[in-house]
Amino acid sequence: MAENKTNLQIDSARLWRDIHETAKFGATPKGGVRRLTLGPEDKEVRDWFRVACEAAGCSVHVDALGTMFAIRPGRDMSRQPVALGSHLDTQPTGGKYDGVLGTLAALEVVRTLNDSGIETDAPLCVINWTNEEGSRFAPATMASAAYVGEYTADNILARRDANGVSVAEALQTIGYNGEEPVGQRRFSAFVELHIEQGPILEAEHKTIGVVEAGQGIMWYDGAITGMAGHAGTTPMPLRRDALVALSEVVLAVERLALAHSPNAVGTVGENVIANPSRNVIPGDLTFTMEFRSASAATLDALDAELREAIAEISKRRKVTIDLDRIFRKEPPRFDPKLVDAVETASNALGYPSRRMISGATHDACNLSDVIPTTMIFVPCKDGISHNEAEDATQSDCTAGANVLLHTVLSLAGVAKG
Amino acid sequence: MAENKTNLQIDSARLWRDIHETAKFGATPKGGVRRLTLGPEDKEVRDWFRVACEAAGCSVHVDALGTMFAIRPGRDMSRQPVALGSHLDTQPTGGKYDGVLGTLAALEVVRTLNDSGIETDAPLCVINWTNEEGSRFAPATMASAAYVGEYTADNILARRDANGVSVAEALQTIGYNGEEPVGQRRFSAFVELHIEQGPILEAEHKTIGVVEAGQGIMWYDGAITGMAGHAGTTPMPLRRDALVALSEVVLAVERLALAHSPNAVGTVGENVIANPSRNVIPGDLTFTMEFRSASAATLDALDAELREAIAEISKRRKVTIDLDRIFRKEPPRFDPKLVDAVETASNALGYPSRRMISGATHDACNLSDVIPTTMIFVPCKDGISHNEAEDATQSDCTAGANVLLHTVLSLAGVAKG
Repeated sequence: MAENKTNLQIDSARLWRDIHETAKFGATPKGGVRRLTLGPEDKEVRDWFRVACEAAGCSVHVDALGTMFAIRPGRDMSRQPVALGSHLDTQPTGGKYDGVLGTLAALEVVRTLNDSGIETDAPLCVINWTNEEGSRFAPATMASAAYVGEYTADNILARRDANGVSVAEALQTIGYNGEEPVGQRRFSAFVELHIEQGPILEAEHKTIGVVEAGQGIMWYDGAITGMAGHAGTTPMPLRRDALVALSEVVLAVERLALAHSPNAVGTVGENVIANPSRNVIPGDLTFTMEFRSASAATLDALDAELREAIAEISKRRKVTIDLDRIFRKEPPRFDPKLVDAVETASNALGYPSRRMISGATHDACNLSDVIPTTMIFVPCKDGISHNEAEDATQSDCTAGANVLLHTVLSLAGVAKG
Repeated sequence: MAENKTNLQIDSARLWRDIHETAKFGATPKGGVRRLTLGPEDKEVRDWFRVACEAAGCSVHVDALGTMFAIRPGRDMSRQPVALGSHLDTQPTGGKYDGVLGTLAALEVVRTLNDSGIETDAPLCVINWTNEEGSRFAPATMASAAYVGEYTADNILARRDANGVSVAEALQTIGYNGEEPVGQRRFSAFVELHIEQGPILEAEHKTIGVVEAGQGIMWYDGAITGMAGHAGTTPMPLRRDALVALSEVVLAVERLALAHSPNAVGTVGENVIANPSRNVIPGDLTFTMEFRSASAATLDALDAELREAIAEISKRRKVTIDLDRIFRKEPPRFDPKLVDAVETASNALGYPSRRMISGATHDACNLSDVIPTTMIFVPCKDGISHNEAEDATQSDCTAGANVLLHTVLSLAGVAKG
């Protein structure tokens, strides 16, 4: 039995088939998936998932925010389950792997254990979190955020989409308004397999990312007020050009993030010039920017350095630069024992791996506040996600699922028959 | 008589009253004027202008593009008239002075000569050019451009506004579809008084700008293609951020124009990021930019230097930068004798003046291709124009009209009674 466990592998073909079978729920012509949370396609994939979990011997429970918990019993039902999973909703023009891989790989772990007749000491719980993406309802990762107490369920149920439909109404429409109170069900651990959504593993030819932490985030709204003017008649030295000032801000954000690289990233994602014209000097504009880092001290430093840079630009350019930090989330830390467990499993399976941080936010980042948590990453093509071109290989997805399997086995314990 | 001529001054109160009386045609709540070319408010001001010119003893003729020519006879009707004037249309949220000052000051010159019983040798022609602004129909300065043969009248008559109304239809609706062929009426000179639309005169405490030349213009459409990506997961060194690349382009445009300052200006007026989001690295964007200079050689140098800078940015940033020069107009040169005449008149009247170039395009810039032409500038508050906040003082407007009067007298010659 011990030998069997070490050599145990998930059924690669079955996992790959499931990924492509569920991709038909919301399939786009370009090969992506459009499966907005709690919409008709989300109901389809949820129904498929419920049937599959029940067929694998699990009992499926749904909480008040529609999150699905599929319990595979363990030998010792007094132990808190080891949880594994991710999400099945996608971006409006999303791909086939983001969230889907981690959820279906969790189901595949259960099926593999069933096939091999392996019972774990602790129960397992395969989870499909509601609305990780945040495309239809804000905020992203709303169900796991409510699970850890960041919001009340009522607060989330009242959120409305662009058409005025509330989360409560959407849940009712598709029949996933569960009765279980949010946050009631407890777990001993949570492990989430996910595509990296970045280019590092692919660039370094690593198969497994052992995720130690997530990044903290600071979001800013900015506005620059200079002086609009005739592009032909205003001498260069007398200009107060808002776009020239923004250009220096954009390059300052890059310079500061690079100075803390690889421990920080910074991005100006949006800018809108007010009343733009090809022969008018931009006088007013708005922009958004963000910094991310896995270190709270680095976030503090970036904030201070940015404000210093902006004060200098503002003074020299004679423009007003307003910068409003609208959001800050502290960096989530994953559980060192769980991180070690992932690395051990990856090494035992012979996969090349590297420790890394998660650049993106995930449900795991919320859960790490209250439950020992970690994540497993596998490469995705060119680092692309949130895009119909999102791609990953069967071999890498299989490797990730195998690491998930052995990590979960080490955490749940295998019954000594 | 000679003494009278030197001391002759226009009627400041009458000019000021006319400017504010016509400002009611299209008056905006914020004190500006919205008088789009060939619309109902333009008909009102044209009717007012025709009546005023006829009351001042002029015969008013209208060409096929609606441009109005008010002839004040001279002693020698075999001489080509000296033309003076500007335009009465405004920007959508324009001011009370742009174009209006030059047209009403030209009328005031005629009235002043009438009041003093002065007959000129050559006839005078007060002109109101159709559609200088180009806000309703493109291109700007369309009537004077057609006058000098840059377009045929038929080409211009077929241009349509945003509602699909053609120039021909709009002219017919307001009854200004004249019978005179465009470009038929010839002049010995054209002098246009205008607010500076820039900050130089005000900054240097000069009353009169003696305009030697206009600026040539190069317009560009640009596009940058980098790589969109997740703002949290893409390491700084692996990014191909289109907005970061644009920021370097914007600063390069400023740097190059400054290097040729005060003989050049450069502006990026518009940029639009494709599918922007606060947590997505900008992958694609478009922008527009322009350079202006009174020197064709400087325009050539700027074009070459910009392309060199962009090639370097493109290579280093691994982004594609497409730059399409969609328009180039060579710098117009004003007639040296007319420029001297303006300077002499200003000096004789005791106004502080400086030679300068026109940053903006005017009907005079077209006419200088075929007729000895010059312009007279007066200061405007903070250099602001094309804006309801556009402002100028009665004293400066009067000074400009006096210089116009004496310039025109020197060109037309005063009958030796």
